[in-house]
Amino acid sequence: MQWKLAARAEKMNPSVIREILKVTERPGIISLAGGLPSPKTFPIAEFAEACANVLHKDGQAALQYAASEGYGPLREAVSQMLPWKVDPAQVLITTGSQQGLDLIAKVLLDPGSRVLVETPTYLGALQAFSPMEPEPVSVASDDEGVSVEDMVAKSKDARFIYLLPNFQNPTGRTMTEERRAAVSAAAAKAGLPIIEDNPYGELWFDEAPPLPLTARNPEGCVYLGSFSKVLAPGLRLGFLVAPKAIFPKLLQAKQAADLHTPSFNQRMVSEVMKEGFLNKHVPTIRALYKRQRDVMLAALTREMNGLQVQFNKPNGGMFLWLRLPPGVDAVALLPKAVERGVAFVPGLPFYAGEGDPRTLRLSFVTASDQEIDTAIAALADAIREQLAHSAAAEVERQMAANPR
Amino acid sequence: MQWKLAARAEKMNPSVIREILKVTERPGIISLAGGLPSPKTFPIAEFAEACANVLHKDGQAALQYAASEGYGPLREAVSQMLPWKVDPAQVLITTGSQQGLDLIAKVLLDPGSRVLVETPTYLGALQAFSPMEPEPVSVASDDEGVSVEDMVAKSKDARFIYLLPNFQNPTGRTMTEERRAAVSAAAAKAGLPIIEDNPYGELWFDEAPPLPLTARNPEGCVYLGSFSKVLAPGLRLGFLVAPKAIFPKLLQAKQAADLHTPSFNQRMVSEVMKEGFLNKHVPTIRALYKRQRDVMLAALTREMNGLQVQFNKPNGGMFLWLRLPPGVDAVALLPKAVERGVAFVPGLPFYAGEGDPRTLRLSFVTASDQEIDTAIAALADAIREQLAHSAAAEVERQMAANPR
Repeated sequence: MQWKLAARAEKMNPSVIREILKVTERPGIISLAGGLPSPKTFPIAEFAEACANVLHKDGQAALQYAASEGYGPLREAVSQMLPWKVDPAQVLITTGSQQGLDLIAKVLLDPGSRVLVETPTYLGALQAFSPMEPEPVSVASDDEGVSVEDMVAKSKDARFIYLLPNFQNPTGRTMTEERRAAVSAAAAKAGLPIIEDNPYGELWFDEAPPLPLTARNPEGCVYLGSFSKVLAPGLRLGFLVAPKAIFPKLLQAKQAADLHTPSFNQRMVSEVMKEGFLNKHVPTIRALYKRQRDVMLAALTREMNGLQVQFNKPNGGMFLWLRLPPGVDAVALLPKAVERGVAFVPGLPFYAGEGDPRTLRLSFVTASDQEIDTAIAALADAIREQLAHSAAAEVERQMAANPR
Repeated sequence: MQWKLAARAEKMNPSVIREILKVTERPGIISLAGGLPSPKTFPIAEFAEACANVLHKDGQAALQYAASEGYGPLREAVSQMLPWKVDPAQVLITTGSQQGLDLIAKVLLDPGSRVLVETPTYLGALQAFSPMEPEPVSVASDDEGVSVEDMVAKSKDARFIYLLPNFQNPTGRTMTEERRAAVSAAAAKAGLPIIEDNPYGELWFDEAPPLPLTARNPEGCVYLGSFSKVLAPGLRLGFLVAPKAIFPKLLQAKQAADLHTPSFNQRMVSEVMKEGFLNKHVPTIRALYKRQRDVMLAALTREMNGLQVQFNKPNGGMFLWLRLPPGVDAVALLPKAVERGVAFVPGLPFYAGEGDPRTLRLSFVTASDQEIDTAIAALADAIREQLAHSAAAEVERQMAANPR
């Protein structure tokens, strides 16, 4: 039997992160690779109570087919949570915010459509867009976010720019207020829609990040949010807020994709969030992650001393971005690090264009303090080994070039 | 702000069924339109116990990100449920079987790809395929299923044939053993892959339907199944079984679409199914639906007497197919029926090609016995009114044509 694949499927390849995560499931490996929230933060008792309540009060409706838009009270709660005026009718509940990216791709991307992305950008977004065969275009970015000048220069015929302004995956960086104002104004002027992804915005450490881009121009943006990082990812519950111009198309794509997001999960989260639960719960996640970031920064400062390693200090979220010394490649380093019991994600897959092979992403939220210390020490050892190897190779190379 | 839509999105239109369902939400309307399982069959107490157990025993894992393939024990349980030898590694858990259709379309359909479908076929499948812009081709079908001769004649360059052999949505018909054997052999000979959708197969009334097509040629078929009709649809839990030739591509499409189906729901259903629960539970659904089918058949026999209405006697599932008298159009009848307090779905949207405007679909599972009686009587009144109207129109037409 010959199965003829669609052209788009010929190009689908296994996720690099996915393959790496398989390796890190081996016992004895400390993984700083995954983007897994700390399971210690999952409010299990509250979920158990919510399940019981939902099934007791309204079990038949919670287990029945439901509207594709989502559960009314949850859409209402989402609109109340957001820091600008949002009509609940513009909120679409999605099966995780990953599904929001899939729906956006279906509705806005033709084969060859230009999509602007940050340098680097979220790998999962590239994967979600990829089946619709766009042409991702990398826009120059610095510590404050995407370059306004480069964005405008590349905006002609672009369908949208995809931005993750808060505690970005993979770099952990946050777009400054000044940059947001400039990006928002320039995008509006250029008629460039913005897809704003904000899964980590609530996970700030010292102060809340600046206002979302969507709040500045709701008609020109689609905003994506998630309950994965403030409650739990295993429920696959996210949402998007879209302007009237495209909401009906996103809704139709949603209906065709999975009819609706599980009604039970929507009601369960709606129930858990009653009486301001997130206001009490999220600060505990912030405190835990901030402490773990500090543990990792201390370990890096101590262990990487003298190694010409650069790393940033994220103000929230889950990730930290590290640049290896000259001559050390992150992809080549990974198996050496795994041999020493630590895993990370190399930076290259996060670049739409040419990437920096010396970069890598570290998560500071899943491992314990002790594990972070052990892992960073092991990582430093692996780097030293690679440096020695690369120095030896350099000597050999020079000797080969000058045999006398 | 100008949003430029993808070409596929320009063609997306609101579902006819969806718009009708909105009308039927009005109080006082008895809906025979929706495909909603009877909520009386939802095992609420068992779900409540399963939720509590899952969260108590393994809450952190149940609420964490998980593998895109699905929860191992659930994949194992699915492979055990099916009546042919299935390797759990070929089972992919999906967010409802609707998502299976979306993934299949992404992996197998290019714009303009020919897709063979029954006459009529499941509307939700047409909607799921539509974003990938295939060309659906209607294959002649009779009471025993799809025509083998017409299927073969139209098979050249077709990517697959989509079939729903058991208690089909919308017609309620079941493909006979003889037809299955012939379809399976002819499709294999023509190199035509089969997508076999089986959401209703367990809902048989007197005897189990014949063996699935996939069991006869697993390498040439993708099989779609669902927990929506045997447990509850609000959990959005389905699965597909795919041959090794395309499983990895479907898995990658799944990962890009929503990372994975909610881990919590997978574990909850896995827990509920322990100790053979479905073996006790599903017979109660069969008995209820059989009784309601009989109530509807009795009401139709009684109320449609003398009206030249034709209807079938499904041997399982949720739907019955009805053909109106000459001169009565189902789309025109609908608002008249709604005025009299009953809703149904006209047959036309279920046809990929030219449809029969006199057909309509009735669900016998959601309404109570009393409501079925009332609704069928109202439907008969609406038909009589339309017949009178159409007879009067005919007289007028003839008088206009022959003014003397």
